Amino acid sequence: MTTRVSPIGVDVERIESELRPLQMDMIALALQGKQLHWNLQGRQFMSLHMQLDGIVDDARGWVDELAERLVTLGVWADGQPADVARESTLDEMPKGAVSDMDALGLMSERIARLATNARACATNLGEIDIASQDLCLDILRSLEKHLWMLRAQQP
Amino acid sequence: MTTRVSPIGVDVERIESELRPLQMDMIALALQGKQLHWNLQGRQFMSLHMQLDGIVDDARGWVDELAERLVTLGVWADGQPADVARESTLDEMPKGAVSDMDALGLMSERIARLATNARACATNLGEIDIASQDLCLDILRSLEKHLWMLRAQQP
Amino acid sequence: MTTRVSPIGVDVERIESELRPLQMDMIALALQGKQLHWNLQGRQFMSLHMQLDGIVDDARGWVDELAERLVTLGVWADGQPADVARESTLDEMPKGAVSDMDALGLMSERIARLATNARACATNLGEIDIASQDLCLDILRSLEKHLWMLRAQQP
Amino acid sequence: MTTRVSPIGVDVERIESELRPLQMDMIALALQGKQLHWNLQGRQFMSLHMQLDGIVDDARGWVDELAERLVTLGVWADGQPADVARESTLDEMPKGAVSDMDALGLMSERIARLATNARACATNLGEIDIASQDLCLDILRSLEKHLWMLRAQQP
Amino acid sequence: MTTRVSPIGVDVERIESELRPLQMDMIALALQGKQLHWNLQGRQFMSLHMQLDGIVDDARGWVDELAERLVTLGVWADGQPADVARESTLDEMPKGAVSDMDALGLMSERIARLATNARACATNLGEIDIASQDLCLDILRSLEKHLWMLRAQQP
Amino acid sequence: MTTRVSPIGVDVERIESELRPLQMDMIALALQGKQLHWNLQGRQFMSLHMQLDGIVDDARGWVDELAERLVTLGVWADGQPADVARESTLDEMPKGAVSDMDALGLMSERIARLATNARACATNLGEIDIASQDLCLDILRSLEKHLWMLRAQQP
Amino acid sequence: MTTRVSPIGVDVERIESELRPLQMDMIALALQGKQLHWNLQGRQFMSLHMQLDGIVDDARGWVDELAERLVTLGVWADGQPADVARESTLDEMPKGAVSDMDALGLMSERIARLATNARACATNLGEIDIASQDLCLDILRSLEKHLWMLRAQQP
Amino acid sequence: MTTRVSPIGVDVERIESELRPLQMDMIALALQGKQLHWNLQGRQFMSLHMQLDGIVDDARGWVDELAERLVTLGVWADGQPADVARESTLDEMPKGAVSDMDALGLMSERIARLATNARACATNLGEIDIASQDLCLDILRSLEKHLWMLRAQQP
Amino acid sequence: MTTRVSPIGVDVERIESELRPLQMDMIALALQGKQLHWNLQGRQFMSLHMQLDGIVDDARGWVDELAERLVTLGVWADGQPADVARESTLDEMPKGAVSDMDALGLMSERIARLATNARACATNLGEIDIASQDLCLDILRSLEKHLWMLRAQQP
Amino acid sequence: MTTRVSPIGVDVERIESELRPLQMDMIALALQGKQLHWNLQGRQFMSLHMQLDGIVDDARGWVDELAERLVTLGVWADGQPADVARESTLDEMPKGAVSDMDALGLMSERIARLATNARACATNLGEIDIASQDLCLDILRSLEKHLWMLRAQQP
Amino acid sequence: MTTRVSPIGVDVERIESELRPLQMDMIALALQGKQLHWNLQGRQFMSLHMQLDGIVDDARGWVDELAERLVTLGVWADGQPADVARESTLDEMPKGAVSDMDALGLMSERIARLATNARACATNLGEIDIASQDLCLDILRSLEKHLWMLRAQQP
Amino acid sequence: MTTRVSPIGVDVERIESELRPLQMDMIALALQGKQLHWNLQGRQFMSLHMQLDGIVDDARGWVDELAERLVTLGVWADGQPADVARESTLDEMPKGAVSDMDALGLMSERIARLATNARACATNLGEIDIASQDLCLDILRSLEKHLWMLRAQQP
Repeated sequence: MTTRVSPIGVDVERIESELRPLQMDMIALALQGKQLHWNLQGRQFMSLHMQLDGIVDDARGWVDELAERLVTLGVWADGQPADVARESTLDEMPKGAVSDMDALGLMSERIARLATNARACATNLGEIDIASQDLCLDILRSLEKHLWMLRAQQP
Repeated sequence: MTTRVSPIGVDVERIESELRPLQMDMIALALQGKQLHWNLQGRQFMSLHMQLDGIVDDARGWVDELAERLVTLGVWADGQPADVARESTLDEMPKGAVSDMDALGLMSERIARLATNARACATNLGEIDIASQDLCLDILRSLEKHLWMLRAQQP
Repeated sequence: MTTRVSPIGVDVERIESELRPLQMDMIALALQGKQLHWNLQGRQFMSLHMQLDGIVDDARGWVDELAERLVTLGVWADGQPADVARESTLDEMPKGAVSDMDALGLMSERIARLATNARACATNLGEIDIASQDLCLDILRSLEKHLWMLRAQQP
Repeated sequence: MTTRVSPIGVDVERIESELRPLQMDMIALALQGKQLHWNLQGRQFMSLHMQLDGIVDDARGWVDELAERLVTLGVWADGQPADVARESTLDEMPKGAVSDMDALGLMSERIARLATNARACATNLGEIDIASQDLCLDILRSLEKHLWMLRAQQP
Repeated sequence: MTTRVSPIGVDVERIESELRPLQMDMIALALQGKQLHWNLQGRQFMSLHMQLDGIVDDARGWVDELAERLVTLGVWADGQPADVARESTLDEMPKGAVSDMDALGLMSERIARLATNARACATNLGEIDIASQDLCLDILRSLEKHLWMLRAQQP
Repeated sequence: MTTRVSPIGVDVERIESELRPLQMDMIALALQGKQLHWNLQGRQFMSLHMQLDGIVDDARGWVDELAERLVTLGVWADGQPADVARESTLDEMPKGAVSDMDALGLMSERIARLATNARACATNLGEIDIASQDLCLDILRSLEKHLWMLRAQQP
Repeated sequence: MTTRVSPIGVDVERIESELRPLQMDMIALALQGKQLHWNLQGRQFMSLHMQLDGIVDDARGWVDELAERLVTLGVWADGQPADVARESTLDEMPKGAVSDMDALGLMSERIARLATNARACATNLGEIDIASQDLCLDILRSLEKHLWMLRAQQP
Repeated sequence: MTTRVSPIGVDVERIESELRPLQMDMIALALQGKQLHWNLQGRQFMSLHMQLDGIVDDARGWVDELAERLVTLGVWADGQPADVARESTLDEMPKGAVSDMDALGLMSERIARLATNARACATNLGEIDIASQDLCLDILRSLEKHLWMLRAQQP
Repeated sequence: MTTRVSPIGVDVERIESELRPLQMDMIALALQGKQLHWNLQGRQFMSLHMQLDGIVDDARGWVDELAERLVTLGVWADGQPADVARESTLDEMPKGAVSDMDALGLMSERIARLATNARACATNLGEIDIASQDLCLDILRSLEKHLWMLRAQQP
Repeated sequence: MTTRVSPIGVDVERIESELRPLQMDMIALALQGKQLHWNLQGRQFMSLHMQLDGIVDDARGWVDELAERLVTLGVWADGQPADVARESTLDEMPKGAVSDMDALGLMSERIARLATNARACATNLGEIDIASQDLCLDILRSLEKHLWMLRAQQP
Repeated sequence: MTTRVSPIGVDVERIESELRPLQMDMIALALQGKQLHWNLQGRQFMSLHMQLDGIVDDARGWVDELAERLVTLGVWADGQPADVARESTLDEMPKGAVSDMDALGLMSERIARLATNARACATNLGEIDIASQDLCLDILRSLEKHLWMLRAQQP
Repeated sequence: MTTRVSPIGVDVERIESELRPLQMDMIALALQGKQLHWNLQGRQFMSLHMQLDGIVDDARGWVDELAERLVTLGVWADGQPADVARESTLDEMPKGAVSDMDALGLMSERIARLATNARACATNLGEIDIASQDLCLDILRSLEKHLWMLRAQQP
């Protein structure tokens, strides 16, 4: 089974160019969320520690949805450390201890970028594959809600 | 809070040299498990697709335990894509479609390596920190059970 | 934090003009549903008493989604009694005892109005913010299903 | 069924004069709790956002108990936006963003007023209807516990 | 253990004269509720069939509470068919098919009588045993709520 | 609907003569089980108190099945206190305190009688209505198991 | 595996002639139940809408049991639309809106027919395969109970 | 209530021409899935037996959503055996034993056809009723995911 | 926040003099219950071991309610080992093995004392704070029920 | 309690001669199922490993029902290793690794034998004890369903 | 796959000589626990009947863990009746009725023996395979707790 | 039963000297955790109030495990207020209001001491009783994790 034609006659290359970068950044987001979850410091540790896990859970869910959507359309998905390190556009999180206030800002910045990308994907996919567009809209609404909750904690 | 002394007077550097590589490989294992979970092909797809998720769930749990054990002992933990790509000793999984039989072999090889490392950690930590040793034993028993279940499916 | 720019560059004023009226009417719907829930009379009391609570539960959920969507987009949300009394476009329910047959008609009329508004919102938002449009579609499908179940009970 | 005699021969007018104001303020409390829940700002956002929802849930439950107690005694209950706007004695919450510290004070003030009223109701009802008194005592204990938890967070 | 002195020095005979009749009528109510539950006829069969079971469940719970309260106070409790047949003051339900409308009236009449008695018990026990009074208040509130729901279905 | 013909053409009178006595005794058993449940004394109080409730729960379930089977076959069911007092063949339980050892014997005697009757019903119904026979077999197996558990505790 | 001998030496053809018609009618019953569930009209809409789903759930369960019993005995089962349309003996439901009162009668008529058939199956199978007979008895008891509940709602 | 005007002013005939064929094929899919579920043969029996039930469960859910959407829009829904046999466009499944490998191909072919139709519906409904379009997109995403899982098992 | 005025204008010192001793004895009761739970001996070990845990769970719950009621009223609560050792009025349990029969008597004696005190508190608080009185009544009913169950096991 | 007369006057020796061999083989089946569960090899390992545990769970349940039925009838039950080794008629499973295909055949052969025996028991007990017959029918239906699922996987 | 090398290079023969006897005795313990569970007599029947099932459940769990640990290490596990009868070192339980007091002693003796063996295994395995040692420690702690609970009931 | 020999021949006195002090401090920790839980003040009240309850729950669980391990080994356990007040080595918590920041420090200090002791116990018990050592390791890992979470909140 070397080449697999997309079962729905859609333009697979254009879909891949939308969904793959989103999926790579989403894997990075899940790993970066854990990085902060472990090294967090400060008075808001408990609530932020839990909030970060909520973001990580959602991110992992969206990674699965995106990767499986790609495979469904006939595109093999990737998600190993080297692939993500090379392709993700998210800035690395700082190493070592991170204060709770810094963590809010750092995470907001990554989620804002992903939300911007998800909105662009949703817009671009409207003419190519409305089912993939619908998935991107679900992701977008989820990301923007997380963004509000992080920003509401920052002065 | 620049330098944090271990709260229990143990030799933190030796513990870190045992637990950090195990944690890095465990993150890689979780991502590689998903790589196969998505691109799997063959008659055993359904049961292996689910079995791989079971392994990924366990691996994620052990990553959390290892990273939080490190932070508990006063060592900051890492787990971002570039760190894992650089430090993990696991061979990369092949890209694209993977047959179910190949997946069994590929995953067995990685888990066998991790089990060997976990056993070495448990042995080495006996004289340094018996609490960390106890964690490594839990990981070892879990890995070896997964290994049996994968090998039992191979001719 | 006096003025907050929308994080996504959308036309916030147009979105607010779509979502705020819907949210105000939805709060009124939840309170009116309870008004009937308490003062209901007639042979269908038991099933309608419960059906009204189902509508109230859904309405409360949509109020939360709408208000939080507004805040996410940088618009402060309102929902206190005086605001709702002033801005809601729903006719008041009659006071005192309400027969089950009357209740079906009264509630159908309010939900029909809200469904019409939700459909207009969804249509108008298509060019402004497709994520808000997606939320309005979810609301619309839920309202129209309640409407069918109420109308099916009327001669 | 124009006039309905109370099934238990109690002085319905005096009971209504005790329970109806409490019910109106309780509806207002639920709506005001949501107002803060949405527009909250500050470092305690996450825990206060959830605590406010706990108060709203309890308030909605007490509204139901109070309204259904009134109807049980032969008095029709009200609870639409205009009724609550006109009859509630609670000061309006400020509009727009509310800091977490302000929210604690604003909510404490409303709950303190409601607790004072509930205590008066319980006292007054002792000679009129001990079943209604028992309900007011349940409400009082619940309100005073919420009051403590809010005050414990204020300097 | 022939004679057992009340552990709390209260006037056991007066308490028994309040609680035993209530318990006997409550057993009768549970059995009468089942009588209607089985022989019900009419368009409201389904919802009334279930509502009657809710009343029976509550009645059985109150029977247990009342009987165990008596034994706790040093009075042996009774509840066999002949005792209930002899001591219960509730009128018998008619035999054979019962229309849904008749069932509402028949059950309302029994619950109204029990509620009147429970209120008298609660009042009388105030000076004898406030713990037993508290139990009667719980029963009273539960009975009056059932009464409202039954009456709301009758023209 | 004064007379209702059995929907299945079976000999309703013979079925009623089998099932109605069983149902009457089963109601008595449930009430007698509670009588012992309340007035029990002795070292085995806790386990027997619970075991009796298990028997009561099963008995109530079988009462419902028997009565609803009768109504299904076109026979109105009865179950009010006076009916049960008059028709039940079970000996009354003694009043007042009952020792745990006595309770075991008293309850075994009633269940043994009911099991004997259920077996006779099952046998007799084989030629009349095999669906009713099947119900009696379920009851028989349940009763005989309770009987063993009670007898195993007696010297 | 062209011909498969029954594993238990029973007369497979006679069993098939009993169970297959029952299974075909049961599939039709499930589809007809949904037909009414959707197009129902009238004051009892809510409770009947739910009751019909309970019947459909039970019917689907019995279809599965019947088909799997056939396959267990070495007979291939069928259940596609054309097979059911050709073999089912149930009269078609009318199309379009159905009043609640009509729906009760229409569904009672189908279930009565199925109950009659299930009773005949159970009787006939007694000498051929008592395990299949036991299954038919379970179905019979379930159908007759549904029948009672539908008939109790009709004047 | 002979003719019912659509409550939302949409072009009901065009919506019906999109949704009704989809609903008919979806009923056929559920019945065909059961046909394979029962008559399956081969080494993958266990996992495919369960996977088919997952498809059947989803199909039944979508049938309900489609039929209730039609009725909500004022169109009576159909779904009896003869209607489905006449209107469904799915090829019949072969009768008798089906090998696991054949079953994968047979089911993939039907789901692929349904997915193509669902995509066409979603596209066509965009200008007529965006709420119905949203439902078709949910169906499409679900079908395409099942399609991937079936195809991944085929060489 | 050195001095905190009671939010409800009640006589805090009198309430403290009622509730604090009850809370101290309740902590002691929970610890003594565990003392017996561990060192129990005799044929009734299993059921009494569990019954004691039920008492301990309830006691811990009441400790929390009492302490939080005190703090709610503006009185700081205590509950450390030395405080309880000094202020509790309960006699110490004997050390080492305790036979099941002795345990029943020892625990009954403590609970009887606490019930007497709770009744006095409830009576005294009636004129001071009816909300605190209501809490004491809940405690009283719970304690007297435990007392019955313990006494019913003693000859 | 040396000799115990059967509580139901049935021919205990004949029942024992039917039920005891079935119970012994059922214990052997549970142990043999585990033997295969552990030593299984081959591509179907995962699904067969789980399927075998399902069989073992059912077998353990039937062992309990059979043994407790014997004791209920006044016959002491046995089930220790030596008893089972001596009395079971099942052929031993081979030791060491067992391929998945062999396991299917080996387990089918044992279950087929047990099903044959259960059918004979059910037939023979019809004239002796219809309650025991009913238990054997439950066992028979369960065994034959397992048998079908095992055979469907074999070529 | 005739010979399978242990995946971890440990001395498999020594591990087998530790774990296999423990596993054989554990199977025997589970069967002996059921033997007592069925034939128990005496006043403590109910609590001991349940306690024995708790022991059986734990024993079955440990059997699985031990057998699967053996297979994981490359040793085939056994557990059929004849193997257990031959290799288990536990004395047989007496046949027929067993009094509750005898049952406590008989079961304590077997568990004491198994605990002694588990302790020896844990000690011996410390130098061979610390993962297997960790399993034996879990078993040991569980067995010793059961032992205490049985002994605490004996005079 | 005056003197009870340890069932496992271990040096009971040395074990008692390790485990009893740990158990005493653990009871004190649970009571001190509640002391802070009630009297807490400050902006982190909500999350710390809950976190302290998590610590109290774990502490109570470990107290039970430690006391029951002692009794299992033949040593009677103690845990009444005076014993704990006399033997616990933990410094008393301050009385009255405690700020959230102070509470973090106060609780960290106690848990750090207990963790140090648990580590010493685990080390010392390695040569005496490896099962007790294993329990101490579980306690140690749990305590050190709580310690990290408390310290991460302190500047």
